[in-house]
Amino acid sequence: MLELVLIKLGGSLITDKNQPYTARLETMQKLVTEISLVKQKNPSLKLIIGNGAGSFGHQSAHKHNTINGVVCDIDKLGFCLVHQDVLDLNRLLANCFLQASFPVVSLPPFMMVVTQNKKLLQANFSVIENSFKAGLIPLVFGDVVLDQSIGGTILSTDTLLVELAKYFHVQGNYRVKLINAGNYPGVYDQNRQVIPEITPANYTQIKAAIGKSESVDVTGGMIQKVEEFLAIADWGIDCWIIDGNIPGNLFKAILGQATLGTVIRAGEY
Amino acid sequence: MLELVLIKLGGSLITDKNQPYTARLETMQKLVTEISLVKQKNPSLKLIIGNGAGSFGHQSAHKHNTINGVVCDIDKLGFCLVHQDVLDLNRLLANCFLQASFPVVSLPPFMMVVTQNKKLLQANFSVIENSFKAGLIPLVFGDVVLDQSIGGTILSTDTLLVELAKYFHVQGNYRVKLINAGNYPGVYDQNRQVIPEITPANYTQIKAAIGKSESVDVTGGMIQKVEEFLAIADWGIDCWIIDGNIPGNLFKAILGQATLGTVIRAGEY
Repeated sequence: MLELVLIKLGGSLITDKNQPYTARLETMQKLVTEISLVKQKNPSLKLIIGNGAGSFGHQSAHKHNTINGVVCDIDKLGFCLVHQDVLDLNRLLANCFLQASFPVVSLPPFMMVVTQNKKLLQANFSVIENSFKAGLIPLVFGDVVLDQSIGGTILSTDTLLVELAKYFHVQGNYRVKLINAGNYPGVYDQNRQVIPEITPANYTQIKAAIGKSESVDVTGGMIQKVEEFLAIADWGIDCWIIDGNIPGNLFKAILGQATLGTVIRAGEY
Repeated sequence: MLELVLIKLGGSLITDKNQPYTARLETMQKLVTEISLVKQKNPSLKLIIGNGAGSFGHQSAHKHNTINGVVCDIDKLGFCLVHQDVLDLNRLLANCFLQASFPVVSLPPFMMVVTQNKKLLQANFSVIENSFKAGLIPLVFGDVVLDQSIGGTILSTDTLLVELAKYFHVQGNYRVKLINAGNYPGVYDQNRQVIPEITPANYTQIKAAIGKSESVDVTGGMIQKVEEFLAIADWGIDCWIIDGNIPGNLFKAILGQATLGTVIRAGEY
């Protein structure tokens, strides 16, 4: 059984979401160092790393309203501009990994996914499997994708990672885990206390208490994130929402050590 | 019958091949303007634009000897570094197109092609067709690709464009033409005079006279280029090798007007 960890580096963690096109390079480098240390400790571990769009993609996606479709020429240009913005941030992150001698390869979701009315219609993840076999680390991100009903839309990093988690889980030879490292200590309740565990059993009473993200985020706030993760918790895929700013937190979460944050799981343990 | 023109913007044209990582931005902008004018004149024309690696990808590809395979960890990192270099140049070119309101989308060949012993084994060009349907202009480039025999290699822009030309030609509803805009006035004979026309009939006597490219170019010189184009000339796909520096030359070549340069064709006209 191979171990696969999908890691989301949140847009609010690796960029300043309130300053357009501003990366937090020191944070990126710190996270890259932690991931590199994990690979040294456990070289057989498979990783897929995804990054949010933060202040690179969300502002332009919001301006062009790309999530709601692509019809006219201005929409098409907007779609391409959003793609360029998310590529720009991903390129900065890729550079951090390469400088740490970490063989990442950037794989634009635009090339792998087609949606229909914002829902996944076709996905071809063979390039990710081929990258694994070649010993490369796939680097994905939230991206624009073509949509057969509305022309085009946005596929969030969370949605993509959830789809990838399911894809590798059903193959039967991967034990899959998802870690969402953000700029927040976990999922808050109404008193801004971190909820340690969310399960299908306690979610109904917790839902009303979960605060929404405050910055611009075209692809949904915390409730959508939790619900996407709950859907795969039922498959036996644990999802951790942790604070990526705390030194060592990501390292420990990947290795399955006790970590501050929220775990979303089926709860039948 | 749709008209499809595949345009190669040579690495020696859009970069200074003797200065590492140095783009010729003014030349890029001039070429983008010519291509934009063509689209204004003939909006139904389909375009695929590819750029060579020039001084961004060739030096690193040469250093890591990526074309001859990827085996050890250092090779893998080299493979990823070459990919990053070619992406960097393509991003600069994409920015020029986007600034001219031209909806290009960058499509890394790494995601579309797998080779075996440096020969194309699998290709999935559906994303290019989907981009056409969505009204976007595909932008490709010479890239690293995974190879089932030797781990990885380099796929040149010329080879990719030739494969794409064949792919769309066999569909039967495209009239396909290929234009190679370089930093040279065409194919030279032994006296550095441009050969106006190369056909299967005159190639044997001309071959010895064709000079090789003088700068570092891991993916082959002029003879390889001519032979790749001759192979599709037989299919009825004309290939023009023109000087991209001459104002209006690319514009005229795309529209099929008389152009200075070398045409490679079947010769049965």
